[in-house]
Amino acid sequence: MLLTFFNSCIFGQLSEDKRMIRQLHELSVTKGKAYDWLEFLCKDIGHRLSGSPQLAAATNYTYYLMKELGFDSVWLQSCKVPHWERGPKEIVRVTGSVEGQFDLSALALGNTWGTGPNGVSGEVIAVYGLEQLSKMPDSLVKGKIVFFNRPFAEAPLNTFESYGMTVDQRGGGPALAAKKGAIAALVRSVTSSNDDIPHTGGSWFGEEGPFIAAYAIGCQSADRLAHALKLGKVVAYCQSDSRMLPDADGWNVIGEIRGSKYPEEIIVVGGHLDSWDVGEGAHDDGAGTVQSIEVLQLLRLAGYKPQRTIRAILFTNEENGARGGKAYKTFTDKTNEKQILAIESDAGGHSPQGFTWESTDKYEGKYRDRLMQWKNILDEYGYRFIFGYSGVDIEPLKPHHGLLMGLLPDSQRYFDYHHSAKDTFDKVNRRELELGAAAMASIVYLADRYGIR
Amino acid sequence: MLLTFFNSCIFGQLSEDKRMIRQLHELSVTKGKAYDWLEFLCKDIGHRLSGSPQLAAATNYTYYLMKELGFDSVWLQSCKVPHWERGPKEIVRVTGSVEGQFDLSALALGNTWGTGPNGVSGEVIAVYGLEQLSKMPDSLVKGKIVFFNRPFAEAPLNTFESYGMTVDQRGGGPALAAKKGAIAALVRSVTSSNDDIPHTGGSWFGEEGPFIAAYAIGCQSADRLAHALKLGKVVAYCQSDSRMLPDADGWNVIGEIRGSKYPEEIIVVGGHLDSWDVGEGAHDDGAGTVQSIEVLQLLRLAGYKPQRTIRAILFTNEENGARGGKAYKTFTDKTNEKQILAIESDAGGHSPQGFTWESTDKYEGKYRDRLMQWKNILDEYGYRFIFGYSGVDIEPLKPHHGLLMGLLPDSQRYFDYHHSAKDTFDKVNRRELELGAAAMASIVYLADRYGIR
Repeated sequence: MLLTFFNSCIFGQLSEDKRMIRQLHELSVTKGKAYDWLEFLCKDIGHRLSGSPQLAAATNYTYYLMKELGFDSVWLQSCKVPHWERGPKEIVRVTGSVEGQFDLSALALGNTWGTGPNGVSGEVIAVYGLEQLSKMPDSLVKGKIVFFNRPFAEAPLNTFESYGMTVDQRGGGPALAAKKGAIAALVRSVTSSNDDIPHTGGSWFGEEGPFIAAYAIGCQSADRLAHALKLGKVVAYCQSDSRMLPDADGWNVIGEIRGSKYPEEIIVVGGHLDSWDVGEGAHDDGAGTVQSIEVLQLLRLAGYKPQRTIRAILFTNEENGARGGKAYKTFTDKTNEKQILAIESDAGGHSPQGFTWESTDKYEGKYRDRLMQWKNILDEYGYRFIFGYSGVDIEPLKPHHGLLMGLLPDSQRYFDYHHSAKDTFDKVNRRELELGAAAMASIVYLADRYGIR
Repeated sequence: MLLTFFNSCIFGQLSEDKRMIRQLHELSVTKGKAYDWLEFLCKDIGHRLSGSPQLAAATNYTYYLMKELGFDSVWLQSCKVPHWERGPKEIVRVTGSVEGQFDLSALALGNTWGTGPNGVSGEVIAVYGLEQLSKMPDSLVKGKIVFFNRPFAEAPLNTFESYGMTVDQRGGGPALAAKKGAIAALVRSVTSSNDDIPHTGGSWFGEEGPFIAAYAIGCQSADRLAHALKLGKVVAYCQSDSRMLPDADGWNVIGEIRGSKYPEEIIVVGGHLDSWDVGEGAHDDGAGTVQSIEVLQLLRLAGYKPQRTIRAILFTNEENGARGGKAYKTFTDKTNEKQILAIESDAGGHSPQGFTWESTDKYEGKYRDRLMQWKNILDEYGYRFIFGYSGVDIEPLKPHHGLLMGLLPDSQRYFDYHHSAKDTFDKVNRRELELGAAAMASIVYLADRYGIR
């Protein structure tokens, strides 16, 4: 009798949770506004690099949007952000080869300095990656243009794994080439696509340098260059005027619903408002920002009153400095708040397949158990929980011992668009985008209702 | 000790299966050719309605493709297929309304007869669906043009559910309107998209009729028409010359790898080669046909020698007669083969999320148990098995008591394109398409290795 009563309580509760989660999903695809907000970000504002007037406009737009939506509080959290400018269109040109002269489709890599008006000219040498380059004697590299040509790995089924296997060429390749005396670096675009659109991204030289100009080149350009190198010596000319300006002002845009019972326990949902300076920053990461606002809206539409404080954070400067994430971390160190859960959406607006998660060792076992319970409740949606990296902006929160999660959307198309002129609004499907918000809202609901450990 | 040995056998076997399934997936995204074959079907041949020269060309292409690939046998299975022709571009025009005159974006529905050169003209009445129409007195319908305007349901998370809730208007609406004396029917396109592209599809009047002209109209046209009807009386004019011709010749294209141990046990993988006469039949169902060929190729590339016969069937005439599926059923009734498993891919070339499955009651429990075992082996891919409809072409095989399955891809984008000019090659992502083939190949491997009950 008691057992029966106990069971019926559990099942009653379970079905109430399932009903709420179903409602959050249905609300997202029927009443969600994330797609409309994304259209404004992409089409009325456009790409949004740190320090640009577009990022200021996006900051303004999302601040007043959350104000209008009537969240309990909305505020800006300021910080200084790196300010990089591409300058006029880059030139990367093969000036001497068995195949003649031809231009390569190129974009300067973010945070790098250009060559100045006269450009640089030198022989091109190809390497398959950093390991090969590091073993080469400096004498072979000095005065050369180093071409990193290891392609995006096709075999991993999650393309973020492929990205992780290749992106070191872009992030650290040019700096290593510079240390060994190279005069410029070319990097095959880190993309699953086989066209000739270059995909930019950050490249890091450290404070000291030495600095050289560095460019992403389109895959077809990379193939053409590799072919010319097979046939003989190749000389190339690079010219660009990209540069770092003094740090600019940046802002995290924060909106929250105050918790009724444990207002000092904070659940963060976030994405980043900045983007690279090509395309429209649609999947990376307009999607994550509008989904984060939508999570709060869905809970309100469902009539749910959270016990804990639910906070949407549109981080600034993820792409070329991660200063927004660091600013929020600095803020949390000064308050008495407990950052119990943070979910970042920065992997595109495609159909949600689950979440990555991580934490400090201290609570890993507890979080694993809790996620197994939630997996059962979420069974009909097929969401998976995979132990792994959460997100650049929330990573600094790790020392708070909270649960950190990253939305895990279908990854097959993401790196076709990522950091390129192709990352535009038309690549985002309304329902897929909204379902991502619903998946996040479901986790927020469960964490708010039951706590995380 | 014995237990340990037994366990290690189980785990050894399990890991061998997991290795093979991982290999099938990796081969699909690294060596798969389905995307190239689909490009030929879509771009060199184009849409492929039954009786059209394009379907004959596609039959030829895929027959010789499978011959060249070196399957153990490749043959054509002939049957008679309905032969419908759209004729010159349809006209559906509002000729009198408070909003003035305007054209509606329209496509005649498949298998319907046009109005002939003079067209028909009449007052438009809107209904929300068949139930409402069936309750209306015939006197209100007689001489009118009936406009079915129930929209595609947004709330279901699987859009095939939405489709099932709405498609009766297109399939059966015009026939019911005709029986009640209507002179033509307009049907709001059955689509998740909100643009003005009409989505055609089959409409069924039975042998006896009465027959009237019937058209799909774009969603924006439907909204405009509904708005005009709110404001007052609307008169429209329809003209089209679509017609049924005498039955034409059609062919299922079949290729197989002969089983080494149980050649009379047949595992079918299939899609349909025909498409509607707009767009390129890319997702519906070029995707399913090239995936079916790919399944056999992946098993061969993996070096797997099947015990049972694996048969790829490219069915003909799924869209407007399903005669290919019936022809194969008739063939199986005459052989001593056992049709143990059939998998159809006819839900688009998006990322695979699992399979629907069904069977006769007799073995339902056994199949459910077997699928639960497979679900564990396939755990890392997140594939789900959902009891439900398998596919139009394999459905006739049900009396053989085999397991019938349908590939279940991500459904969010499918009905944006379905049966319209938008179903073109560029909507298909190479990796998503190939992973669908890998998912099917994995099931085929498990069924071949262990049988299905």
